[in-house]
Amino acid sequence: MNTHSPSTTDTEQPVCIAVDWGTSRFRAHLVGAGGRLLGDVASDDGMSRVEAGGFEAVLTRMCASWLTHHPGLPVLMGGMVGSRNGWREVPYVACPAGLEAIAAGMTWFEIAGGTRVAIVPGLVVDAAAADVMRGEETQILGCGFDDAVVVLPGTHSKWAVVRAGRIEGFRTFMTGEVFGLLTRQSVLRLLREPPLDGEAGRAAFRVGLAAALAGGGILDRAFHARAGVLTGRLAPQDVEPYVSGLLIGAEIGEAMRLAPTDLPIVLVAEGIVAENYREAIETAGGRVTPVDPERAFVDGLLRIAHHAREAADVRDRRVP
Amino acid sequence: MNTHSPSTTDTEQPVCIAVDWGTSRFRAHLVGAGGRLLGDVASDDGMSRVEAGGFEAVLTRMCASWLTHHPGLPVLMGGMVGSRNGWREVPYVACPAGLEAIAAGMTWFEIAGGTRVAIVPGLVVDAAAADVMRGEETQILGCGFDDAVVVLPGTHSKWAVVRAGRIEGFRTFMTGEVFGLLTRQSVLRLLREPPLDGEAGRAAFRVGLAAALAGGGILDRAFHARAGVLTGRLAPQDVEPYVSGLLIGAEIGEAMRLAPTDLPIVLVAEGIVAENYREAIETAGGRVTPVDPERAFVDGLLRIAHHAREAADVRDRRVP
Repeated sequence: MNTHSPSTTDTEQPVCIAVDWGTSRFRAHLVGAGGRLLGDVASDDGMSRVEAGGFEAVLTRMCASWLTHHPGLPVLMGGMVGSRNGWREVPYVACPAGLEAIAAGMTWFEIAGGTRVAIVPGLVVDAAAADVMRGEETQILGCGFDDAVVVLPGTHSKWAVVRAGRIEGFRTFMTGEVFGLLTRQSVLRLLREPPLDGEAGRAAFRVGLAAALAGGGILDRAFHARAGVLTGRLAPQDVEPYVSGLLIGAEIGEAMRLAPTDLPIVLVAEGIVAENYREAIETAGGRVTPVDPERAFVDGLLRIAHHAREAADVRDRRVP
Repeated sequence: MNTHSPSTTDTEQPVCIAVDWGTSRFRAHLVGAGGRLLGDVASDDGMSRVEAGGFEAVLTRMCASWLTHHPGLPVLMGGMVGSRNGWREVPYVACPAGLEAIAAGMTWFEIAGGTRVAIVPGLVVDAAAADVMRGEETQILGCGFDDAVVVLPGTHSKWAVVRAGRIEGFRTFMTGEVFGLLTRQSVLRLLREPPLDGEAGRAAFRVGLAAALAGGGILDRAFHARAGVLTGRLAPQDVEPYVSGLLIGAEIGEAMRLAPTDLPIVLVAEGIVAENYREAIETAGGRVTPVDPERAFVDGLLRIAHHAREAADVRDRRVP
């Protein structure tokens, strides 16, 4: 468990706890008026590590101090915690969907100590090209753009089209997961060494990116990461950045082919992932506006909860 | 250990033992005059399961009866047994390469009892699109075509261009390995159930195949195998055939785009794999000639060994 910043002081009263509870990570923010972030805690207690019936214990342990000092503080949650194998299954809301539909789809319940807990629903595209998301809908609605193509890189990258504040549809790319499988589980792992930092690694990233953006597939180009090392054309340290560039390029080539061209591209990412996607999108001829992922998540939760309060019974919820 | 057919009789004298020794399988044939197959043994003692220094013991155990009854019978081997982590590393031969170059690259040595053993080298494409193979070169040279595009499906599918009996170049697709990773290791495994036999499964295969041949990528279309089940558009039993069609379609779309159109397509495969590739290639507008993989392997070994005999000292080798 990490505590990234100190607990709130007496001078600032929190309005809720915002929890981003995904497959592999738990992260909670103590949120003050106007969305001010007063403190946060995080751990590896992701959904996949929590057994059925164990969610409340994780939440109350991680947020014990906040819940003790601020009894009655509501807890707003999003992510895989609302999936079939999560705490409570919250049915998907169908796209297109805006704040009202998503707020109306929230599940509310009470835990020990009278704490009110809410889970935001995920979204579904129930069409021939079916798709689902859980957690990203909250970031999309909190990214500050009512009309945009919103890109959320990750294990399962999402590209969403937002118009007039509604999420019209989206598409998932298994980029992060396939990267992990290829570099950690496939034959490519055998000749791989930890990548170099800085420009050395970026050169190989760009080789992979260019290969993908030139068109064609990844099944053969991925194998070049092995044959390239065997022939001395690729350093073992370059296997990871090459495969990263190849897969991100494949995602971006396809996503930008399908995305509307009249909308700005908003990139919800940070660190090296943000850098990789920004470079890839710009190489493909796009421009990006970066948005902080955690900020977008908290803002999205607050916006959704605000509509929930207006749409239904207020008294029991005490949300901001 | 399986013995698929009886040992040779006294009436037919074998001329060699042909060993197909790959990463996961060991398979040996007792070969008579004219390439007649007199018997075979197979086991899971693939290269990945044999420790350094343990190869001779596996060979002599698996072929004990043949080596006892026919002392001096030479053993011809191909596959990953000649790789860095195999019995002896046999350097790759560079493409373009024909029978002479490959025969000249063989490694010969003697084991206990005076048995002569030979390992066929793999091939390398030492160019920007670098590539390597070990084992398939033998099947390609044994498939009976001097001018063809030869397709060898598998964990790492190979597409080779053969002209005037020489392997000009080839390209590897990680189709089989990515199929295994996606259906066994990725999030798609969670909603997967064993596929149905027969036409039920083929319908989903065709959906995946059509999606891939329509162009675009696999990173997003693979995720439809999850979202499709969640939305009731795909049965859990259809996840595997859908992903199979998708990946084979992606391989074939790319490979046929790159392959010369003036050559026949020869498919070295059997069973359901042969059926899947034949349908996929025909759907993409091609025609295939099927070839039995083991027959091609043994014939290739014999052809290569024949050139080795002509190219160097004969007396010590006693190959057919």
